[in-house]
Amino acid sequence: MRNAIIFSIGNELVEGLIIDTNSKYLSEKLKVLGYYVVRIETLPDKLDILVERFKAGLLEADLIITTGGLGPTEDDLTREAMAQALGCKLVIDEKIAQELVERALKYYGKAPESVKKQAMVIEGASVLDNPVGTAPGQMLQLNGKIVIILPGPPAEMIPIFESITQTIKTDDALYTRRIKTLGIPEAVLMNEYKDIIYSNPNITVATMASYERGVEVRLTGSTELKEEIDKVASELLNALGEHVYATDDDSIEDVVYKLLSENSLTISFAESCTGGMISSKFVDIPGVSKVYKGSVIAYSNEVKTSVLKVPESIINTYGAVSEECVKSMAENVRILLNSDFSIAVSGIAGPSGGTETKPVGTVCFAFSSDSFTRTITHHLRGNREMIRKRSTLLAFDIARRGILEWLRQREVSKE
Amino acid sequence: MRNAIIFSIGNELVEGLIIDTNSKYLSEKLKVLGYYVVRIETLPDKLDILVERFKAGLLEADLIITTGGLGPTEDDLTREAMAQALGCKLVIDEKIAQELVERALKYYGKAPESVKKQAMVIEGASVLDNPVGTAPGQMLQLNGKIVIILPGPPAEMIPIFESITQTIKTDDALYTRRIKTLGIPEAVLMNEYKDIIYSNPNITVATMASYERGVEVRLTGSTELKEEIDKVASELLNALGEHVYATDDDSIEDVVYKLLSENSLTISFAESCTGGMISSKFVDIPGVSKVYKGSVIAYSNEVKTSVLKVPESIINTYGAVSEECVKSMAENVRILLNSDFSIAVSGIAGPSGGTETKPVGTVCFAFSSDSFTRTITHHLRGNREMIRKRSTLLAFDIARRGILEWLRQREVSKE
Repeated sequence: MRNAIIFSIGNELVEGLIIDTNSKYLSEKLKVLGYYVVRIETLPDKLDILVERFKAGLLEADLIITTGGLGPTEDDLTREAMAQALGCKLVIDEKIAQELVERALKYYGKAPESVKKQAMVIEGASVLDNPVGTAPGQMLQLNGKIVIILPGPPAEMIPIFESITQTIKTDDALYTRRIKTLGIPEAVLMNEYKDIIYSNPNITVATMASYERGVEVRLTGSTELKEEIDKVASELLNALGEHVYATDDDSIEDVVYKLLSENSLTISFAESCTGGMISSKFVDIPGVSKVYKGSVIAYSNEVKTSVLKVPESIINTYGAVSEECVKSMAENVRILLNSDFSIAVSGIAGPSGGTETKPVGTVCFAFSSDSFTRTITHHLRGNREMIRKRSTLLAFDIARRGILEWLRQREVSKE
Repeated sequence: MRNAIIFSIGNELVEGLIIDTNSKYLSEKLKVLGYYVVRIETLPDKLDILVERFKAGLLEADLIITTGGLGPTEDDLTREAMAQALGCKLVIDEKIAQELVERALKYYGKAPESVKKQAMVIEGASVLDNPVGTAPGQMLQLNGKIVIILPGPPAEMIPIFESITQTIKTDDALYTRRIKTLGIPEAVLMNEYKDIIYSNPNITVATMASYERGVEVRLTGSTELKEEIDKVASELLNALGEHVYATDDDSIEDVVYKLLSENSLTISFAESCTGGMISSKFVDIPGVSKVYKGSVIAYSNEVKTSVLKVPESIINTYGAVSEECVKSMAENVRILLNSDFSIAVSGIAGPSGGTETKPVGTVCFAFSSDSFTRTITHHLRGNREMIRKRSTLLAFDIARRGILEWLRQREVSKE
């Protein structure tokens, strides 16, 4: 397997002002392309450090990728440092220089000499078009090694990197299927379905459990195993049934959106402890207006009774965190917002507000449709943020299961 | 200045499964404690790589901090690797071993020998208590160098690191003031207030502009300059007036929460394009129920008219993205949810939905109180996510300015 080293460059990174998301993205992609990432180095914008670290990296790795340090100011030293480390010259790319000057004139009315800095290219490197920003990427192949230089902003880095994945792919490139589940504990899943999961010794199995995404099974092997991996994945999908909420790159909200959109149906939410998180996550999806009416965030009991018309007797008898309350919230918000379905969530996210019978982490959920309502209570662990994120995931899951049940009922009644 | 290297350890990091937030936290803190972070290295759980990289780091840096790789399984190799790199032995800490065995018996009913792995300590190191998890931290001083070993989960790493900041602080420790502004472009701010900002040549000035947080001015210097830095900060605060939305660690939602809480006032929101993001961010604050009633997420026009009672004539005449519409949304949600104040937001987050007169990024905001309503329209740049995040920031800012105006009016009327 070929080795790779990723360099993330910028004072803002080593001073802790921003989080490096580029390296996560690149290391995940590089694994699939068949590289072993021996390390990621985050470095300041300092020429001597960059030259020394690049030189060390070039001795050890088959592939070097840098992100950041390609701006037009004096701080931006990645180009210079890599040229020095490689013992190559920097030359001006006249076509890019011309574009940069025209762009500067158009936007700022003047084009100082410094704008041309971004047109400096390591001699022999191919220029990688930047569809979003001004600094192009560069790729150089030298003595069997590949050096790739990319800009720092993720919106610029990602499309440039995607344009070269086929070029740098190795014979060790991998094929991966991801099966995302909820409602079955990791240990139970891996034990009950082990005959399927481990049926092919050539396939590597990994699991990952998280409060935000449930339990994910990853099946990985060389690209030649594609059909075999797909076969195991499809057997596992069949066996797990509705416990699978999504596969591969889909999120749970994507799946709920698709279920609604394909059937021209709509949804609304009534949120208490999640406080708008379910709604906001759903609105992350462009075009969601086709299926999403809106929500009532009933954070106070007053809003639960005044806007959502939950009878005061329910709150007095069972409390605001009860299946009775979320049932009423769900049914009423569905009618109030004129949607086909609705979800309601009420719980205790903490840190305070817990009692002996309803400790922090108690969260009630309801799904409502014109033909049935389902409720469930979960006891969640973790801090306020974890409880709210897990509740958001579970809310989408009760929506997914409810919509599937409703669609099945409709099929039966049609027959 | 003393040099530091941070090592983040874990296969899940170099395979891109999770994002490294520890290094951001540590590098920000180390700067303030007087260290220059020469690099951050992210490494896999592989003994030979770890030993080699730790050895290289020990030659270069005065302070080495590792996070991760302290679990009880065979994958977790940080302890062993650091002992080898230092040429020291690992010894068992009997007190911790005893605690780990008792804990395992309590939670799992059995205590395999492997639980004692987490009690292995580098000879001569002090044990750093882990108040949250099982793996303690370790600190070793050797030949004028400091080695600190911390667990990977942030909830465990942070309190342990905080317990030793006073011990590792250098004579170059820094004092920083952060002034966070909105409503004045970075270039204008730095030019108009340069006489204050640059009044003391011993103070280092840095600015950071972001769509999520506005423009931040950082004043930094040695801890001995504390009074001088505070003086410049306070002059700048006076000069900038209401453009300053927060200082130091406060966020804009913290400031709105405090303004409401200190005056026993309440707020509600009517959101369209932000889709619950304003609400969800506010509910991140524990105890927010004191000041927050709830929200109506009126994503569809139907909900704007049916629940929020925006007259259809307003939507037909001016459109849903208009100051007229948000004014009506804000006034009506305030009355519907019985709060002292309200904020309404309606805009075009894209990628589709833009028109020639109202392109993607057009966002209207309204603040409503019992005595006045204010509206404003912003034209924002960026993708859907950036527009929604910027809108959320601006919504809290119009709330902050509106509440301050209302409080001033109340003061005047009392006189």
